[in-house]
Parts: sequence; C-alpha cells; structure tokens
Amino acid sequence: MKILFFAGALRADSCNKKFVREAMRLVETKGGYQAEFADLKDYPMPPYDGDIEAASGVPETTMKLGEKIRAADALIVSTPEYNGSIPGVLKNVIDWLSREKSVSLTGKPLLLLAASPGALGGVRSLWHTRVPFEVLGVHVFPGMMGLPNAYNAFDEKLHLKEEKTAQQLQKLLDQFLSHIAPKA
Amino acid sequence: MKILFFAGALRADSCNKKFVREAMRLVETKGGYQAEFADLKDYPMPPYDGDIEAASGVPETTMKLGEKIRAADALIVSTPEYNGSIPGVLKNVIDWLSREKSVSLTGKPLLLLAASPGALGGVRSLWHTRVPFEVLGVHVFPGMMGLPNAYNAFDEKLHLKEEKTAQQLQKLLDQFLSHIAPKA
Amino acid sequence: MKILFFAGALRADSCNKKFVREAMRLVETKGGYQAEFADLKDYPMPPYDGDIEAASGVPETTMKLGEKIRAADALIVSTPEYNGSIPGVLKNVIDWLSREKSVSLTGKPLLLLAASPGALGGVRSLWHTRVPFEVLGVHVFPGMMGLPNAYNAFDEKLHLKEEKTAQQLQKLLDQFLSHIAPKA
Amino acid sequence: MKILFFAGALRADSCNKKFVREAMRLVETKGGYQAEFADLKDYPMPPYDGDIEAASGVPETTMKLGEKIRAADALIVSTPEYNGSIPGVLKNVIDWLSREKSVSLTGKPLLLLAASPGALGGVRSLWHTRVPFEVLGVHVFPGMMGLPNAYNAFDEKLHLKEEKTAQQLQKLLDQFLSHIAPKA
Repeated sequence: MKILFFAGALRADSCNKKFVREAMRLVETKGGYQAEFADLKDYPMPPYDGDIEAASGVPETTMKLGEKIRAADALIVSTPEYNGSIPGVLKNVIDWLSREKSVSLTGKPLLLLAASPGALGGVRSLWHTRVPFEVLGVHVFPGMMGLPNAYNAFDEKLHLKEEKTAQQLQKLLDQFLSHIAPKA
Repeated sequence: MKILFFAGALRADSCNKKFVREAMRLVETKGGYQAEFADLKDYPMPPYDGDIEAASGVPETTMKLGEKIRAADALIVSTPEYNGSIPGVLKNVIDWLSREKSVSLTGKPLLLLAASPGALGGVRSLWHTRVPFEVLGVHVFPGMMGLPNAYNAFDEKLHLKEEKTAQQLQKLLDQFLSHIAPKA
Repeated sequence: MKILFFAGALRADSCNKKFVREAMRLVETKGGYQAEFADLKDYPMPPYDGDIEAASGVPETTMKLGEKIRAADALIVSTPEYNGSIPGVLKNVIDWLSREKSVSLTGKPLLLLAASPGALGGVRSLWHTRVPFEVLGVHVFPGMMGLPNAYNAFDEKLHLKEEKTAQQLQKLLDQFLSHIAPKA
Repeated sequence: MKILFFAGALRADSCNKKFVREAMRLVETKGGYQAEFADLKDYPMPPYDGDIEAASGVPETTMKLGEKIRAADALIVSTPEYNGSIPGVLKNVIDWLSREKSVSLTGKPLLLLAASPGALGGVRSLWHTRVPFEVLGVHVFPGMMGLPNAYNAFDEKLHLKEEKTAQQLQKLLDQFLSHIAPKA
C-alpha cells in the first residue's frame, strides 16, 4: 500500500512539513507501507487563472503531482492555518488539481493533520480544508489532529518531543490505516 | 465615501468581474460615492511562501493593493466558487494582505457577492469567504447575493439581463450603503 | 446489510421524510438490503439540559434510537435547512446521542441528503450537518444530494416526479452502497 | 443603550452562563448601559415541529424572548460547543425566533463568546454559531472570544480568576461597544 505525504506549505522550515514527515516516519516504522513525501515547493503553480489554462492547459507540475496522487492508495496531508482557514497556497493546488479531466484526488482516503504555532492547533483550518477535498470526492477520515505550539514541538532530530503527543499521532495513524486496509 | 470593488478571479472575461462591475455601475448611478475597481490581475502575487517573505518582504503588489484598501471606506467583492469554497487565488491575496504590519482590511465594511455558472450561485463560497475576512476584523455584511447561471446573466452591455436580478442587487446595495453611511 | 433511514424533521408531512423514504424505496428495489425507517417524532427528546441528564440520565428515547443506530450497518439521513444550517431539532438529537457512554454513531457510514422548498436544496445545511457527525467519528460520504423546490417534487404516490432527479438519487445511492459494501 | 445577555445553555451551573454574566458585570462597571440577563431556562421551547406551529403558532416563550431581543440595542451571547458546533438547544431557539413574522434578531449587533471545558475554548462552535445569526441579518462582531478550561476559570465570586483573561474580555467588550455606539 502506497501512501503519499505532503504539507500545505512552501517554507523549507515549515512546521507542517515536519509534522507530516514525523507521521511518515511513524508509518514507515510500522512497516508494510510504501511512503513517499511530496514537497509542494517542487510543484510550483501560478495562482489559478482561466486565461492561463485556456492558453497552455493545466501546468505540468499539476499533472506531475496528480500522477503521484493517482499512484497512491491513501494521502496524509498536514495543513497550516492562515487567517482561520485553509492556506491559499494549498487551496490553489487543489483548484489546479481539480482541472484535470480525471481528477486524481477523487475517491482517495485522506488523513488530515495540522500544525500551528498558536494554542488552537489549526483546528479552524482542519475543518475548512476538509470541504474542497470532500467536494472532489475524497474520503476525509473523520479523526484529525491539530498540533498546537508547533514551533516548540520538535526536538533536534525533528521527532515530536512530547511522548503524549507522539502517542496521539500514532493512535490516529493506526486508526486511519486499519480503516483503509480492507480496501487496499 | 470611497468604495473599492474587486473580484476574486484573474480571468479577463470572469463573470465575477462582470458582476462586481455591474454593482459598481449601480452604486455610481446612485451618486455620492467614489467608486474604484481593482483588477487582481494588476496585483500579481506568488503563492504565499514564508521564505519569500523572509528574503524580500511582502510583495510590492500586496502593499499597493493594501493602500487601495486602506484608502477605501468600504469594500464590495465578488468571489467565484472553486471546489465548494473560496478560490485559492483570492485566499492567497488575503493571506499576503494579512502579513502587512498594519492590516489594511481590519475594520472595513465589506459586501460579499458571488457569481457562478452553476445553479447554486456560489453560496458555499460566500460562506467560506466570510471567514478569513472576519478573522482579520472585517465587518462582513450579513446580507449577500449569489448569482447563478452567470454565463448567461449579462447582456452585450454587460448589464444584468433580468430585471428581477438587477433589483435584488440594487436592494442589497441600498441596504449595505445605508448601513455603513452613519459611519462615513 | 441493515440500513437505517431518518429525516431531521418532526412534521408529519415533512419533505425530508418523503425524500428519505423515496431513497429507502429505491434501496429496497435494488434488493439485498434490510431497510428501516425511524421517525424522530417517535423518539421525543427535550432540548439538551445537563441538569436533566444529571437527574435522570440520557432519555430512554435516545437510548432506543441509539440501539437502532447501533444495529445498522449504515445510515441515510435527510436534513432540512433551517436558517442556513442544521436544524436545532436534529442537532439536539445528535447532542443527546453523543451523551451515551458508547456512542452509537461512531464509525458508521452515513449518506446525507437534504430537501428544501428553496432553490438551493439545503446545500448550506448539508455542509453544516456533516460536522457534528464527523466529530463523532461518522464516515460521512463525500457525495451528497440536495433536492430544491421540494414541495413540488413528489407525485401522489410520493415518488420523485422528475426522472432526472430520481436518476441522480439512484446513482448516488449506488455509489454509496458500493463504497460501503466491502465492509459489510 | 440596552444590552441583552444570554447563554446558549440550560444547565443552572453552566460555564457559559457564568461567562456571559461576567461580561455583563464588566459592562455594568463601565456604566452607561442598561444590561439585562435572560436565562433560556425561563423560555422553554419544544424542539421545532411544523405541526406544533400549525396547530398553536409560535410558542409564547419564543414571543417573550423575541420582545426582549426587540427591545435591546445589542446582544451578547455565550455559546457552548456541543460536538464541534452550535448546541441544538441554542439553534432550536434561533429556529423558533426565525418563525415570528417580524424577526426580532434582524439588524441587531451581536458579540459572540464561548466557554468550554476543553483546550480549544469552543472555537468551532463560535464559527458555526455565527451562521444562523448572519442568515437572519444579525451583525455579528468579527472579534469573538473563546474561554478554554472553563470549569476552572472562575473564582468563588464567579469572576474570572486570571487577570489576563479578564483583560482580554474587557478589551473585546470595549471594542464591541465603541463599534456600536455611533448607532445607538
């Protein structure tokens, strides 16, 4: 079973990249999964513009990311919270992905995570980010996890510092993976 | 009283640009308002990236749009609906605007419109688009208007074809303007 | 496979009861499913009050409905839209159900429908109604269907008048049932 | 200027009643306002049922609460979070209020608060609770405040224990009151 991991942020030092990579490490430790990380910085897309689309079609980067998604059995995504909701940069990627004739996201199981420097752990973004995915037919897992105070959450190895937090993530991953297993 | 109009879309032929320009025409016809249209295509911004911000600050286009907003007493914005929610391109503009030290949007009254080729008139986008504005302290007017079947809604002069629809927009504009007038 | 059908309304002549019963008829016609309708009017519950709960526990009607849900492999629910969101009456039932020690809803697959006399078919309610179910661990199917102009949608046999609408419902039911089948 | 305060909960010992009463105390301390508290327990309403409405109209308790609202220049409401969203009991009150011929809520300025025993302070409820009010034409103030760990937030006088929290509430009240003052 192939799982694709990515974060809804571009910054190299993004705490959402750290969080989703930590989830990837825990999944790899379980064994039996083929895990891959996609960095959205490697798939640059302009803000969606129908005139660009009419002139030159869906960007090649969109199609490449679409292929990765198509090849995956499940997705695990960590999203920042910008202004109480989904980051424009992540929504823009979804908007472009939705323009492919056959939408790669449709029907995929997705586990949503969020990391945020604030106390609320990106909870408002989690609930907003579900919507465009669900509109595209993604099966977003009902359980989610927001990581608060994310700038202080990782040690020098980029592992989660707090045992309790790591266990919470592990448990959620276990639930998600055992839910999707029968379909693999 | 100065009112700034813009659409959350880039495409030159965007039905949201048409809709917000029609709102502008109706406001200008009332008289007593200084109306200005901003085309987001003239304010190109890359997808938000904390590394870009750290290297070169908020884009100049963001600051220019911020100045326009700061100078306005009220905003009227028409937003497309992409995948059941706010377009990434509009959210990205809001995300960049929120990075200015003094956020131009804060405290502004805003009337939200939406136009969509579908039957629902972008209603899901309207409700999602409120949120980041409200998080930034914008007073989003409770009344909103979604224009369904927007590809067939305008005549060759780019006026709304249907009398009833034009009246609905006129009434909403009157309510919004009379609500904000005492503060002007 | 057992499927429980109910509507988020009390009124005897509710168009949501009609819509969910029509869904039930189509499912029964397919064959191979054990379909049951629950009328919320038969499960009266007071507005949630922690003092009532402390004095006399979760109402017996809640526990009876909880048993029905527990016994079902999947749920199909049609929800009205009151004031742009989930009806208080339906949310109140969910709130009481959530107070059982073992929450019957958790882990169940759910297909959400909505019927509304308006033009938008209850789409705002659909998206709000997902949330409390998902918070409780329900797997709400990403596809949903809102029925607009619902007071004129049914013939004297209480079947959907329009062929196209009936086909839309049939297709959604087929998708939902084939999605959950592997887990049955 | 008259301000009506209420909580979206029935329980006598509700932390939302405490929170909104603390807001009321701070407003009264400012002076110049006529503050009144309404306890929803004094306005019992059955879950909304169109058959009840057809048989006996809107409940008298709804009309009495509607009168209180109509007489107020502004509302301050504290809402619990049940299952990640608006409590059914509060939504039901709004649903009944919306059935009066002239809806008392329309056009009123409203400040929303929330108190919750959890770490997130009811933030998901705050954003869901805005919607039905806004659909009814209420001007919900963009600033809101969620009080986390609310079971430990009050001292024996039922004042907020933490100075910082009290200041946050005071500041928000000042902003809200100075925003609505020009219209009084």
